[in-house]
Amino acid sequence: MEDKMPKVGVILSGCGVYDGAEIHEAVLTMLELDKRGCELVIMAPDKPQMHVINHLTGEEVKGETRNVLVESARIARGEIKNIDDVNPDELDALVLPGGFGAAKNLSNFAVKGEKAEVDPSVARILREVHKKGKPIAAVCIAPAVVAAALGEINPELTIGNDEATAKAIEAMGGKHFVCPVDGFHVDEKNKIISTPAYMLGKRISEVHAGISKMVDALMKLIG
Amino acid sequence: MEDKMPKVGVILSGCGVYDGAEIHEAVLTMLELDKRGCELVIMAPDKPQMHVINHLTGEEVKGETRNVLVESARIARGEIKNIDDVNPDELDALVLPGGFGAAKNLSNFAVKGEKAEVDPSVARILREVHKKGKPIAAVCIAPAVVAAALGEINPELTIGNDEATAKAIEAMGGKHFVCPVDGFHVDEKNKIISTPAYMLGKRISEVHAGISKMVDALMKLIG
Repeated sequence: MEDKMPKVGVILSGCGVYDGAEIHEAVLTMLELDKRGCELVIMAPDKPQMHVINHLTGEEVKGETRNVLVESARIARGEIKNIDDVNPDELDALVLPGGFGAAKNLSNFAVKGEKAEVDPSVARILREVHKKGKPIAAVCIAPAVVAAALGEINPELTIGNDEATAKAIEAMGGKHFVCPVDGFHVDEKNKIISTPAYMLGKRISEVHAGISKMVDALMKLIG
Repeated sequence: MEDKMPKVGVILSGCGVYDGAEIHEAVLTMLELDKRGCELVIMAPDKPQMHVINHLTGEEVKGETRNVLVESARIARGEIKNIDDVNPDELDALVLPGGFGAAKNLSNFAVKGEKAEVDPSVARILREVHKKGKPIAAVCIAPAVVAAALGEINPELTIGNDEATAKAIEAMGGKHFVCPVDGFHVDEKNKIISTPAYMLGKRISEVHAGISKMVDALMKLIG
C-alpha cells in the first residue's frame, strides 16, 4: 500500500516583507505543509521586482534591480521553479504566502488597488487550479491577489480588519470576513482558505498559529 | 508578580543559505524562542557580505555587493540592531543560526578552515556572554564560529557527521560530537548547545525538530 503525498504549489514573490514574500509566512507555510507529508512545488515568476527596499531603513534603493525568482530561491534554498514551468494539473493545492511582493510583484494591487491586474502567469495558475476544483490558500495580503484573479467567483477572504483593503477586495468581487490573527476562514463553495498573519500579527508565534490552522483546513479540503 | 522575559540575542549573517543566514534556521529559531516567551534582540554586523550568490544557479554574482546588516533586516522585518550597539550585559543567552554567512561573514571559516578568524564584533559578544556564564546555542555550521572564538574553553559542539568540518573544529580546540538532525548536544560545563540542522537535514520539519529541542535545552540553561 502506498499513500500518495499531496503535491502543493507555493507561489513566492521575492524575499523580504517590503518588496517580496514575507519570509516568516513563507517558511512557516513550508514547515506546516512538510510536517503533514506534502511534497512542495515552490515557484515564482521570472521577472524584475517592482523595486528593492532597504529593510533596515524602509527606503527604496534607487537604481538596484532584483529578480523575483532569483530572490525567492533564497527562501527555497534553490529548490524552486519558474512558475511558467509548472503544470497546474500536477498540483493538489496552491498556497500564496503574503508580503508586499504579493501586491507588488504577483499583482500591482499596491499601486492600483481595486483596479489591480494580476501577473499573467500567476493568474493562469490560480484559474487552472481553481477550475480543477483544487483548494487555494492565501496568507496576509495575498487574498487581494485571489480577489483580483478570481473576483467573478466572489471568493470569501480575510485581510484581518484593514478597512481600505477589505473595501478594495469587495470592489473586486470578493467577500471580506473579519478574522483574528490566530484564526482563518474557509470558503467551502470555492475551496479557498485565508488567514490574516502579519496583516494583524505582532509576534511570529501568533502568525504561526493562524498558518498552522489554515494548513490543517487545507489538508481537509485536499482530502 | 511579574515574570521577567528572558532576553535572547540572535546573530544573523545575511539572508540566504549560500551567502548569509540560513533562512529556515533563523525563522524557526525565532519562532521557538517567541513561543517560549523570550524577547528577541536580533543583530548583525554592519559590513559588506563576503560575496553575493545567485541562489537559483549557485553562482557568484560578480560586481554586486550587499550589506550583512541590511540583508539580515529582511529576516528580522526591520527589527534589528547593529551588533556594535548591543550591550552583552542585557542578554540572558545568545543564539547563532547557521548558513554559509556564519562561515563567510561572521568568520572566515569557509576560506581559512581551522585558521579561521572571527569578526571582532561577533567575537566580542560571544566572549562577553560566555564570561558572564550565560548560555550560547549554535545551529548548523555556526558551531565553527564558536570554536574559532572560544577554542580555549574546549567547547563540545555538533556539526552533524561531516568529517572535514569536525576535524577543523577539533583543531581549533573544540570537541566534536556526532549528532542526528533531530538531536542536539549540551556542553553543561560551558553552557553551549548545538544542533546540526541543515548540515544533515533534508526536510524543514526535521530541522525544526532539532531546533525546537535545542531551544528547550537553552531555556533550561537560562533557568
